[in-house]
Amino acid sequence: MVSAYDQLPRTPANFVALSPLRYLERAAYIYPNQDAIIHGSRHISWRETYTRCRQFAHQLQKIGVGKNDTVSVLLPNIPAMIEAHFAVPMVGAVLNTLNTRLDGKTLAFMLEHAESKVLLVDPEFVPVAKEALSLISQEIYIIDVADIEFDGENQKIGQVEYEDWLAQGDADFEWQLPQDEWDAISLNYTSGTTGNPKGVVYHHRGAYINAASNIIACGMTPRATYLWTLPLFHCNGWCFAWTIAANGGTNICLRKIDPELIFKLIHSHKVDYFCGAPIVLSMLINAPDEHKVKIEHRVEVMVAGAAPPAAIIEGMRNIGINVTHVYGLTETYGPSALCASQAGWSNLSIKEQAQLHSRQGVPYPLQDGMKVLDPETMQPVPKDGQTMGEIMFRGNIVMKGYLKNPKATAEAFAGGWFHTGDLAVCQPDGYAKITDRSKDVIISGGENISSLEVEEVLYQHPAILTAAVVAKPDPVWQEVPCAFIELKVGKTATPEEIIAYCKEHLARFKVPKDVVITEIPKTSTGKLQKFVLREWAKERSVAEFN
Amino acid sequence: MVSAYDQLPRTPANFVALSPLRYLERAAYIYPNQDAIIHGSRHISWRETYTRCRQFAHQLQKIGVGKNDTVSVLLPNIPAMIEAHFAVPMVGAVLNTLNTRLDGKTLAFMLEHAESKVLLVDPEFVPVAKEALSLISQEIYIIDVADIEFDGENQKIGQVEYEDWLAQGDADFEWQLPQDEWDAISLNYTSGTTGNPKGVVYHHRGAYINAASNIIACGMTPRATYLWTLPLFHCNGWCFAWTIAANGGTNICLRKIDPELIFKLIHSHKVDYFCGAPIVLSMLINAPDEHKVKIEHRVEVMVAGAAPPAAIIEGMRNIGINVTHVYGLTETYGPSALCASQAGWSNLSIKEQAQLHSRQGVPYPLQDGMKVLDPETMQPVPKDGQTMGEIMFRGNIVMKGYLKNPKATAEAFAGGWFHTGDLAVCQPDGYAKITDRSKDVIISGGENISSLEVEEVLYQHPAILTAAVVAKPDPVWQEVPCAFIELKVGKTATPEEIIAYCKEHLARFKVPKDVVITEIPKTSTGKLQKFVLREWAKERSVAEFN
Repeated sequence: MVSAYDQLPRTPANFVALSPLRYLERAAYIYPNQDAIIHGSRHISWRETYTRCRQFAHQLQKIGVGKNDTVSVLLPNIPAMIEAHFAVPMVGAVLNTLNTRLDGKTLAFMLEHAESKVLLVDPEFVPVAKEALSLISQEIYIIDVADIEFDGENQKIGQVEYEDWLAQGDADFEWQLPQDEWDAISLNYTSGTTGNPKGVVYHHRGAYINAASNIIACGMTPRATYLWTLPLFHCNGWCFAWTIAANGGTNICLRKIDPELIFKLIHSHKVDYFCGAPIVLSMLINAPDEHKVKIEHRVEVMVAGAAPPAAIIEGMRNIGINVTHVYGLTETYGPSALCASQAGWSNLSIKEQAQLHSRQGVPYPLQDGMKVLDPETMQPVPKDGQTMGEIMFRGNIVMKGYLKNPKATAEAFAGGWFHTGDLAVCQPDGYAKITDRSKDVIISGGENISSLEVEEVLYQHPAILTAAVVAKPDPVWQEVPCAFIELKVGKTATPEEIIAYCKEHLARFKVPKDVVITEIPKTSTGKLQKFVLREWAKERSVAEFN
Repeated sequence: MVSAYDQLPRTPANFVALSPLRYLERAAYIYPNQDAIIHGSRHISWRETYTRCRQFAHQLQKIGVGKNDTVSVLLPNIPAMIEAHFAVPMVGAVLNTLNTRLDGKTLAFMLEHAESKVLLVDPEFVPVAKEALSLISQEIYIIDVADIEFDGENQKIGQVEYEDWLAQGDADFEWQLPQDEWDAISLNYTSGTTGNPKGVVYHHRGAYINAASNIIACGMTPRATYLWTLPLFHCNGWCFAWTIAANGGTNICLRKIDPELIFKLIHSHKVDYFCGAPIVLSMLINAPDEHKVKIEHRVEVMVAGAAPPAAIIEGMRNIGINVTHVYGLTETYGPSALCASQAGWSNLSIKEQAQLHSRQGVPYPLQDGMKVLDPETMQPVPKDGQTMGEIMFRGNIVMKGYLKNPKATAEAFAGGWFHTGDLAVCQPDGYAKITDRSKDVIISGGENISSLEVEEVLYQHPAILTAAVVAKPDPVWQEVPCAFIELKVGKTATPEEIIAYCKEHLARFKVPKDVVITEIPKTSTGKLQKFVLREWAKERSVAEFN
């Protein structure tokens, strides 16, 4: 017999798809006249933002963009970038934010793989966009997004200019919620260690939940002011575009990381929250004193991409900013774990605090599970701080899957958990601490670099016989790629020549900062002993910076 | 062709039922040694709370309680009450919190209607529980919950005592998440204006979402201290038992409203948040000065049940406590709307602020929709502060339905919205304001008239002691307002004078067309018998028009 409790079906009154689009609608309803977006001297209210997004969505619909079509953007943190986070899913389409630091060839791969129908481009990235578009044959509708805050040349390659185009849309356009909260909302490419980038698909349910989870994690009070130091192309700004709508807050745009400007904006707009990689905080700490301003209100920063070193936690505290370390991957909508503070930590020495805060920690508020598991047995490792396992996540803040890549998706989800590839121990208090990343990734200034990708380029150099790229510790970028090279017999090449060669074939941030021509230690079976090279790189770093 | 975006199915890694049970597991994992519950001198950590809930769940399973079985509790705000919010759903059962202020006959109806298998009783409510049990025949397993903080007689009627019984459960009991987030989690009876109480069923999804929504609504910082002034039997303490677990906070128990004790607890435990009806705040404001303590930390209170008058908002501010007005019904998991503060409000006079804060406001953060709709056309009323409509909700914070009452469920959800029965206007800033409850509305010539509004005007007349306004049938206007009046001793006024007075203070269509000076029939408790007056008005109409 069916229980009476089970005889109460879902109806339109009591079941609605979870979607961050509602956050925008609600903010526009409650705070119509409040600033939603500030960009330089430009102020856009929540009412205007909602109207603009509806116009944007209507325009997309008019050019035939609908359910499951991809709209790519190559934009810095400007109003159009935030608007795209709502307008694109309003017509059921999928937002693909491209990393503006990538090279044309990689971007071309992504545009092709995503089958993008539309591309929005900022003038700063027109050259690389041009290069990407020259490599592909598909038809893409290009929209130039002019920006008064950009001080370079206002190059155009598109059919239309964003503001003109937007103005033609219907301000009352009747957009729809997704039919299913499982529908795709965005596509973020992640650079794996091997092969082509993988397209990580997010859904409305996850975006809604992580946006709320961000608020809970940092105890964000309503109507907060948020500064966009974190690129919106990283995990959709870790979902903060949606978070700030849910919070009824104000977005402060920022084209580039400029410590003087950041201090100025924190002061003038009373910024409450911002996010970034340790490099951003490092730049603030090391800014000249005349650029720093006295901060007298509560300011919170979420840092991710690498564990914040003690000097950064201490340095930020001296500035008057509280640091929360969060951890996650593109596959987990950005932050999916945090190093939650405990009562009593604040009484410890700054060194002890930094030690505690450097850990990846515990599950994010609305993530279902995070564990350090033995990847063979799928059992949790003991809480001994010694036994190594792999950090795994399970829950609603885990991607829908990799686009057109069922094999990689199945591997990532094997055993009912998402495998991060990050090796870690579980400390006695239950906090996870990464001991070794899946070794072939170098994280530099918050960007992942695949050592294999760099090695592939090096191997194409006519003089190079063997190449091995490892992470070298760096006081500014945390890590930089360091290449060890063996030359072919009879060939010559200087480190400078090799670096110049890499610059031609790789995005700037991926280029090795240090190239060493030497004999590479190998095992008896000829395997390169990267652990030795990592030690060498560490020694070179110490010699260089001390 | 199926889009590649739609070829990414739910898997155990990326789709998990939303359930507040996870909040407990997470709090126990992250904050094992922190106080979860403080009750008098008793401190229970999160690790202990989780263990106790698992033991409690295991014990329930041992006596045969499982999926969709009802467990009723007749308890004040003590540890067992909080624990029941987790332990009962851990075995798939449904928690039915009974209002301890009800009579035995009503409780008997509920126990029977819910088919309760288990009842937990506090000694204070043993007499009424006995009475209720004497009226029903079903077999119920009774558990006495002795409480050292109760100063009355420790009466028992059960098979076992809670602590002894609990101790026999398995601390490592492997509970399960619900198979479906739509599964029932709790049952709360609501007393309608007519007929039997209706059983409002909540599901895991809604409980999870509203628990998070509470945190977002009040900007709750992690590890908050929450004082239980609000009965946990009201909408599961408006879901705050789950909220405090999600927040990793501390519950401060409270058996009864005692202003001196409340001040003491706020001070000694540094309470951050509490909730209650205006009467609770009124008691704090009017407490003798020697009971009040100086509050020097941020304290937030959520008030619901009625709009807080200006004196209460001002009084609380003088004490040092910030008031947020929230609105909802049992059917909406408690708060489902809030009177969100706007920038600039705090600069207004306290009277103006109170006026603004007295409104029911705008949708709760994670509620999908709240509108003032014309119940005939289901169209929103204009934002004119004049046109009356009915407040309706739609979204995931709306009940699963009424238990064993498909007719009432269908009516409540007619047109795809939950009908609150509360009549309201929408003010120009979009905030809803309740003007009347349905039964006291007179519809004249298609216009809604609030009987309360007319009575308020009448009560301002110097000669009027008592006024009651009801609908009188009218061949032209369908209904007209008819006023029954008792004059003050020694005062005089004619019906004509009173009508003339009303014309000065009311829109024409709201002025009573018929005024009767007479003795008004009342109940033994002094309540005006409006149903008698409605009969009288009908008779006058017949005499007049035939």
